[in-house]
Amino acid sequence: MSTFTGDHRPASAREAAAGLEWLARTGVPWSAEPDVIASRRLDRSGWEPPGSPSGVAFPRTVADVRAVLKGAAETRTPVVPRGAGTALTGASAAGSGSVVLDLSGMNRILDIRPADGVAVVEPGVITADLDRAAAAHGLRYAPDPASLELSTIGGNVATNAGGLRCAKYGVTRDAVLGMEIVLAGGELLTTGRATLKGVAGYDLTGLFVGSEGTLGVIVSATLRLRPLPAATATIAAYYPDVESAAAASVALAEARIQPVLAELLDQATLDAIDPGLRSAGSALLIVQTDGDQAEAAHAAEVLRAGAVSVQVSEDPEPLLYARRQALPSIERLGRPLIEDIAVPRSRLAEAVRRIGVIAARHDVRICTVAHAGDGNLHPLIVAGSHGSPIPEAAVRAGDDIFALALELGGTVTGEHGIGVLKRQWLAREAGPLSLDLQHRLKAVFDPLGILNPGKAL
Amino acid sequence: MSTFTGDHRPASAREAAAGLEWLARTGVPWSAEPDVIASRRLDRSGWEPPGSPSGVAFPRTVADVRAVLKGAAETRTPVVPRGAGTALTGASAAGSGSVVLDLSGMNRILDIRPADGVAVVEPGVITADLDRAAAAHGLRYAPDPASLELSTIGGNVATNAGGLRCAKYGVTRDAVLGMEIVLAGGELLTTGRATLKGVAGYDLTGLFVGSEGTLGVIVSATLRLRPLPAATATIAAYYPDVESAAAASVALAEARIQPVLAELLDQATLDAIDPGLRSAGSALLIVQTDGDQAEAAHAAEVLRAGAVSVQVSEDPEPLLYARRQALPSIERLGRPLIEDIAVPRSRLAEAVRRIGVIAARHDVRICTVAHAGDGNLHPLIVAGSHGSPIPEAAVRAGDDIFALALELGGTVTGEHGIGVLKRQWLAREAGPLSLDLQHRLKAVFDPLGILNPGKAL
Ligand SMILES: Cc1cc2nc3c(=O)[nH]c(=O)nc-3n(C[C@H](O)[C@H](O)[C@H](O)COP(=O)(O)OP(=O)(O)OC[C@H]3O[C@@H](n4cnc5c(N)ncnc54)[C@H](O)[C@@H]3O)c2cc1C
Ligand SMILES: Cc1cc2nc3c(=O)[nH]c(=O)nc-3n(C[C@H](O)[C@H](O)[C@H](O)COP(=O)(O)OP(=O)(O)OC[C@H]3O[C@@H](n4cnc5c(N)ncnc54)[C@H](O)[C@@H]3O)c2cc1C
Repeated sequence: MSTFTGDHRPASAREAAAGLEWLARTGVPWSAEPDVIASRRLDRSGWEPPGSPSGVAFPRTVADVRAVLKGAAETRTPVVPRGAGTALTGASAAGSGSVVLDLSGMNRILDIRPADGVAVVEPGVITADLDRAAAAHGLRYAPDPASLELSTIGGNVATNAGGLRCAKYGVTRDAVLGMEIVLAGGELLTTGRATLKGVAGYDLTGLFVGSEGTLGVIVSATLRLRPLPAATATIAAYYPDVESAAAASVALAEARIQPVLAELLDQATLDAIDPGLRSAGSALLIVQTDGDQAEAAHAAEVLRAGAVSVQVSEDPEPLLYARRQALPSIERLGRPLIEDIAVPRSRLAEAVRRIGVIAARHDVRICTVAHAGDGNLHPLIVAGSHGSPIPEAAVRAGDDIFALALELGGTVTGEHGIGVLKRQWLAREAGPLSLDLQHRLKAVFDPLGILNPGKAL
Repeated sequence: MSTFTGDHRPASAREAAAGLEWLARTGVPWSAEPDVIASRRLDRSGWEPPGSPSGVAFPRTVADVRAVLKGAAETRTPVVPRGAGTALTGASAAGSGSVVLDLSGMNRILDIRPADGVAVVEPGVITADLDRAAAAHGLRYAPDPASLELSTIGGNVATNAGGLRCAKYGVTRDAVLGMEIVLAGGELLTTGRATLKGVAGYDLTGLFVGSEGTLGVIVSATLRLRPLPAATATIAAYYPDVESAAAASVALAEARIQPVLAELLDQATLDAIDPGLRSAGSALLIVQTDGDQAEAAHAAEVLRAGAVSVQVSEDPEPLLYARRQALPSIERLGRPLIEDIAVPRSRLAEAVRRIGVIAARHDVRICTVAHAGDGNLHPLIVAGSHGSPIPEAAVRAGDDIFALALELGGTVTGEHGIGVLKRQWLAREAGPLSLDLQHRLKAVFDPLGILNPGKAL
């Protein structure tokens, strides 16, 4: 970032070569240094965009974002908004001819209003930082994607990120009350409200949530905070098979227990973490409650039915350890493709079983971890060694998994989004009429098609 | 409804007079009888549309709805979708030249899937009927507008209806997973999904929720059901003033208690119900919890701070009685205009106080009932006697209330919507850029402008 204007103007030859005189003229810090560009070209999907972006802009203010978008519209330059670049879909990857709009520097928490249960933040705030700031007021920011120490609120909102706690507290959508958005031409739009309830006009807020930077750039968000629970109890239950683990998670709902999280690990995942775990059972269900001790005791009792063993702890870490080890363990086996489907809750066990059949058919290793309460599965496909090309078998296994999701009445993405990699599958899931309408909505907000083109739809 | 086609074809002279040959040709049951038209011309807002609709169609199937919308598009006939007509905004009132599409006959519950926590219903299902059907499976349909014995699911979705329980379980939006929608040209669109989580594509479901019949006609909805609580406890606490009642409701949140409902009744409301209540206190807060006894005891303890008296009961009815009596009591004083604003939670007491000042300034009686947990207030303006024209003072008091909502950082409608009556206020709240975008979204879905024209925007 040595070529920020203001501090160090890049050589005008380089500006000209990149066609970025317009960006230099905005006065917004930017860079076309190869290392800066290289560090903002990819997301975490493994998808390689064609070519490289011409430059990276580093706005510090809403006015900066407006200036960049105005200039981009005038020059018809594609803009790729970027938070932390942790997307798993290609959504934040940027290819040739584009400019990356890196919002990570707009990372101030503007306001926390405990009496209203509301926070106002800039888009670059790291998810976990907001949660920690809220905790100082006895509150929490509930949506907790596993990437929360890296990901930004802007990225979370633009992907409608889920997480573990959304079993009880909802996804990012449920926490967003209002936003400020810079539109493709540079205009500043305010959506939503600062109240917990409101129905004035069409739900523009909801439309921007999950739109993957293709409709506008989020420059601030008004978010709902929730009270921090007094205490939690964590329960780990091993089952002889995935069917009994899935049944236990449905039994919890039937017993009117709403766990904060309910994570299911299948046999393949347990094997990857530690082959010794096989003796404990073939499926692990980890549940957390945040009510009182009676709720925790009730949950443990429900989970005991059909279980091989049940452990309860007030300290969540030992029991969540296996869950946290899932990804690192699989990464030791090779490069994981982190897939993401959702099925009706009652089809969860069937989905896990049939993913096993798909793995056998294509002779690839697939470890499945699921947010059981929501029917959201993450099959982790071990796709060759790190850095090598992704084997065809892994890609075909992925396709079979998406087809399975649709066959079971589910969706091809529970929380990671469409990005680039799932566009064909969106077309299949949504159908031509819906897709056509979505393209027409895109055209309302971005008639020139400069906002993250080729993503999300 | 004696003139349904199929059974009794209306005289072709009458069809021709009304310009409804196209409707007759669809084969969909319809009527142009004056009494049928009169019974579907108004909603519950008191707003009088100019003239009367030409006819009322009574579809029984999705194909019927498609046929009516196709014919309407061909003949450029405005269509006003209608559930039960309980809207309080003019949203379902129909004026001259339009055809009412009465969906109340499509009232089958198509499926309840307890293991998935999901129901699929036609739009004409009465809200309370769905809740009762769910109860047979130990489940509930959570959104409970006070009109729930009359209102339809289609109307609830189209207005994003709130209710008492949304303090804990969210508004209608939070219960809608997916929909089937007939578009203005008769095409059938599927939105959303049958899973609890999903982020494939733009959130069309959210866009249709609250769109007041202006973007498409909901012909089925996939809804989330929740477990029925084992027991509830109801607490009624009287306070010396509205500030201490509002503070008690914030204290509940700070004590990490999430009540199912938290209803605040102000002095004017208590006076209207029974002047004798004045001796009990100047503000009443009614709270319900649905956790265990410890939660109820904790809530009662929190509410005791600053209270004149606190009563707890396992039978909700005696304590909810005052709340249920609010509207009927005010109706005995005259015709109530049921207003609806929301403010940040911390401004609730200030809002109630200043509504009192507005009442005094215009010399009208205003009784305020609030969903305290959400900062959603219903000022009930006593506007002359039933049937008489609405006095100017009542209209001006209403305007002052909406201006107050905006001044306090709130919204002009917490749950009833815009309809016809609040369009000017939407323009003020949303501003020209947002309004322009909303009109352009409307044009994407309804380029001919035949769907409930003049409403919502
Ligand atoms: C190890 C790991 C674990 C993960 N776990 C989860 C999980 O549990 N749940 C989950 O949902 N996801 C998960 N993800 C995926 C990813 O972290 C989320 O999608 C996250 O929300 C992305 O945030 P980000 O700041 O990195 O966004 P980026 O990757 O930078 O961007 C994501 C998308 O948002 C757009 N965008 C970013 N900022 C803005 C803005 N201000 N305005 C408009 N558009 C913007 C981008 O253009 C892009 O389309 C995980 C990823 C990793 C690597
Ligand atoms: C006594 C009383 C109490 C009330 N309490 C509450 C409350 O607590 N909370 C609350 O939110 N509201 C409340 N309301 C307002 C009203 O009941 C709600 O707005 C309700 O959702 C309307 O449902 P309905 O079936 O009567 O719809 P209607 O009045 O028939 O229609 C409302 C709107 O929805 C559209 N519409 C109806 N059906 C469809 C469909 N299938 N497809 C597309 N558009 C459709 C109409 O065109 C119209 O724009 C109350 C009203 C009364 C009279």
